Amino acid sequence: MITAVEKRYEKYQAKMQELADVNYAISVLNWDQETYLPQKGAASRAQQISTLTKISHQLATSEELGDLLHELSEKSDLNEWERRNVAESLNEYQKKQKYTTDFVVRLSQVTSQCYQSWLKARAASDFSIFSPAFEEMVGLKREECELLGYEEHPYDALLDQFEPGEKTSNLLELFHDVHKQLVDFVKEISARPQVNDEWMYKFYNKEKQWQYGIDILEQMGYDFKAGRQDVSAHPFTTSFGSNDVRVTTRIDEYNLYEMIWSCIHEGGHALYEQGLKQEDYGLPTGNYLSLGIHESQSRLWENNVGRSQAYWKANYKRLQENFPENLGEVNLESFYKAVNIVKPSLIRTNADELTYHFHILIRFLIEKELIEGSIKVKDIPAIWNQKYKEYLDIDVPSDKEGCLQDIHWSHGSLGYFPTYSLGSFYAAQFYQQAQKEISDLEYQITNGNMRPLLQWLRTKIHQYGRFYTAEDLCIAVTGEKLTFRYFMEYAKEKYGYIYGLKKK
Amino acid sequence: MITAVEKRYEKYQAKMQELADVNYAISVLNWDQETYLPQKGAASRAQQISTLTKISHQLATSEELGDLLHELSEKSDLNEWERRNVAESLNEYQKKQKYTTDFVVRLSQVTSQCYQSWLKARAASDFSIFSPAFEEMVGLKREECELLGYEEHPYDALLDQFEPGEKTSNLLELFHDVHKQLVDFVKEISARPQVNDEWMYKFYNKEKQWQYGIDILEQMGYDFKAGRQDVSAHPFTTSFGSNDVRVTTRIDEYNLYEMIWSCIHEGGHALYEQGLKQEDYGLPTGNYLSLGIHESQSRLWENNVGRSQAYWKANYKRLQENFPENLGEVNLESFYKAVNIVKPSLIRTNADELTYHFHILIRFLIEKELIEGSIKVKDIPAIWNQKYKEYLDIDVPSDKEGCLQDIHWSHGSLGYFPTYSLGSFYAAQFYQQAQKEISDLEYQITNGNMRPLLQWLRTKIHQYGRFYTAEDLCIAVTGEKLTFRYFMEYAKEKYGYIYGLKKK
Repeated sequence: MITAVEKRYEKYQAKMQELADVNYAISVLNWDQETYLPQKGAASRAQQISTLTKISHQLATSEELGDLLHELSEKSDLNEWERRNVAESLNEYQKKQKYTTDFVVRLSQVTSQCYQSWLKARAASDFSIFSPAFEEMVGLKREECELLGYEEHPYDALLDQFEPGEKTSNLLELFHDVHKQLVDFVKEISARPQVNDEWMYKFYNKEKQWQYGIDILEQMGYDFKAGRQDVSAHPFTTSFGSNDVRVTTRIDEYNLYEMIWSCIHEGGHALYEQGLKQEDYGLPTGNYLSLGIHESQSRLWENNVGRSQAYWKANYKRLQENFPENLGEVNLESFYKAVNIVKPSLIRTNADELTYHFHILIRFLIEKELIEGSIKVKDIPAIWNQKYKEYLDIDVPSDKEGCLQDIHWSHGSLGYFPTYSLGSFYAAQFYQQAQKEISDLEYQITNGNMRPLLQWLRTKIHQYGRFYTAEDLCIAVTGEKLTFRYFMEYAKEKYGYIYGLKKK
Repeated sequence: MITAVEKRYEKYQAKMQELADVNYAISVLNWDQETYLPQKGAASRAQQISTLTKISHQLATSEELGDLLHELSEKSDLNEWERRNVAESLNEYQKKQKYTTDFVVRLSQVTSQCYQSWLKARAASDFSIFSPAFEEMVGLKREECELLGYEEHPYDALLDQFEPGEKTSNLLELFHDVHKQLVDFVKEISARPQVNDEWMYKFYNKEKQWQYGIDILEQMGYDFKAGRQDVSAHPFTTSFGSNDVRVTTRIDEYNLYEMIWSCIHEGGHALYEQGLKQEDYGLPTGNYLSLGIHESQSRLWENNVGRSQAYWKANYKRLQENFPENLGEVNLESFYKAVNIVKPSLIRTNADELTYHFHILIRFLIEKELIEGSIKVKDIPAIWNQKYKEYLDIDVPSDKEGCLQDIHWSHGSLGYFPTYSLGSFYAAQFYQQAQKEISDLEYQITNGNMRPLLQWLRTKIHQYGRFYTAEDLCIAVTGEKLTFRYFMEYAKEKYGYIYGLKKK
């Protein structure tokens, strides 16, 4: 006999599934846009996506859903998972209710202007072209913080959109450690003899690379019956439900790094999505937790696994056999070092896994101070260039290679960048725990068997979706809150070896 | 200064565009389902399509749209195109309003049962498995006719869904001519020495076939910047707006017919869609006229052009060069005859362009009589087999190869089949007119220049969308209503030559 509450919960679930159907449809349209859309189809596609987005918003903010959520949130006879779903859905619903139509319209107009002026500014390598529109955007974002509300710091309201529950104070602490510990460590590395990787830029045949990438994904445990790989200008992962999670890659015939680590990185994202509960389709517990946790899955595979000795013991021979003309004379040790080169550089997306965090640290500080109002938009280039000198010891030759390099700000995505670093730090903390709990992990990886690791990630992380907060998940998995310590330990051990640093 | 009426018309246009956005999104999801969907994604995809279909229905039947249409339909200060759009949209709107929720639910349930039982019946080659569900379906379809209303014959209401304005009485006349003229002509042909085409079933490399198909499409004038070709189990054309019209093909390495004529056929459909007015996106005048007119475009290219001597004079050499091992010894004349083989056969989709119409005639008569109530569902196999003997002089060995061969009835698509024949007859009538108006048409085609023909079709047919009714379009283009005469003239001339029949 089904109770009245169960009936209402089913109604809620049906509404959430319907909303997910529309959102996944938007994802299909986006995926197609990035992979197969013919040139002239772009304008209509943008319109189709915009219409579905409007419909999605209507469903997500409907009074009927609100009433249902309020009603269910007062019921005591739901189980723990159901309560969590209702609470999380209500939370999202209430956040969306805070936006006035006027604000949404203005944000959409400014976003469009901002993106257009960013395109122009980047082409001219002149931040001052971008500055006026971005000034407006920052004004709107400050308004948004007030609209959404916060407890400690206005920037928390923006962080919360990408990393629910994350606090500015917490990031300041984490990045304080990054600054204190990583700057000196990178300087030590820079003083050592540098690693050679010139063979990575020889000619690598496209079809052979493609097949090697497919093999990488299969070895990781990516399910090709519940997904596929295609080619796009920028690699990405997208999900239409956990039984259809797709990745894309990019192949550069004169840069072997590109395809290999985009496959491993996107593969890591995709394994997370494929590991979400299909029966919780549309519900928070069937959805990824946060961008930081999502990124932890991609980076764990990309760096902790994909740049390890064990991984390349398993896979290097096959790579050599595919490209004997380039790698025949390169031994495993040299290859391993090459894929772990550390070198301060201008462009975030090309940065190594250590100096990467300086790029994020700088973005974070600038964003925080813009939102506080303690710096002005027009001063960004000067601040940017000064900080790159201070943290990375490099001169920024132009805005294009400096503060205009990334698209995020032009979309109004302030509060997004920190999730990249959080991903790496979570990855290090999760991975040391996996190493503790899977006694022969390295041995298994060396033999190309990734199943124990995937199984561990599935059990400990993937299956929970948004059941936990990120903080609670981290405690549940590792016994403590996120700390920078594990990343630093991992970095010291690995790079100490590669660059022949003395242990202190 | 924009007037109040113009404002209301713009509102109407915006609503129609929104509806089109949702419908085209459904088409994207369907396209992906047939081309790239991973196996496990099928269930979620079906659900996503079903949700969007529900939303589309809500938009199409909204009170707001209805009010707008009623209001605009009374305004005299709209131009001719605008009036036509409003009238056509109101007509569609009113048709949708006639369906009660109860009827829609029952139809959806019976359709699902009907499809499932058809799958089982076909596998067992036993019509009696399909019979009970189809009996219910026919009952519902008879109800639907009453619900929709009709002037002369209940079957008209069903025809109208696929071929607006088409009448049973008109089809009876047309098919009377088909019966009278074509049965004897095919018998004459059957009595002549038969044509050899055994080389068409040798091994034809997939990649070479694919490239040849792309070349075919390009030569026809298909715009690859506003579309693309992919592979699917059953070839189809789909549109997401006239700037993104996609085709699919199927390649059988042991049957050269398959790829070539599916490319030409779908290419013909696609040229129609690419020729619709992009600025009328979402409006009737930006949409195809009817299934019969759509099919006229595919068949005109497939048969009138694609099985002509001129076409193969232009293209055979390249085909020979691609497959010298199979076609090196086959001359143009033999090839031309082979691709025009006439041979009564069991399966509609494999039929030649003459005997094809017997398949449709039989379906039409059975459907009409089912709707009148003059025959019973359980008697279909006997009637079917008797008619195949009478018209095609062949014995039907099993229901699977007989009345269970096509999926349409299992979907409740009664009134659909006649549009296939209408397509061929319209094609013949249009093509003779093109031949009259483009004096050097054959010469141009012989030189591989399809532009004059495409330009003619664009000007005379494509650009009008649904501005005309099919009957009015036919009169506007050819000066008279659709008649079987042009098809028969075309058939007599072409097949008389190929089979060496004496002129009477």
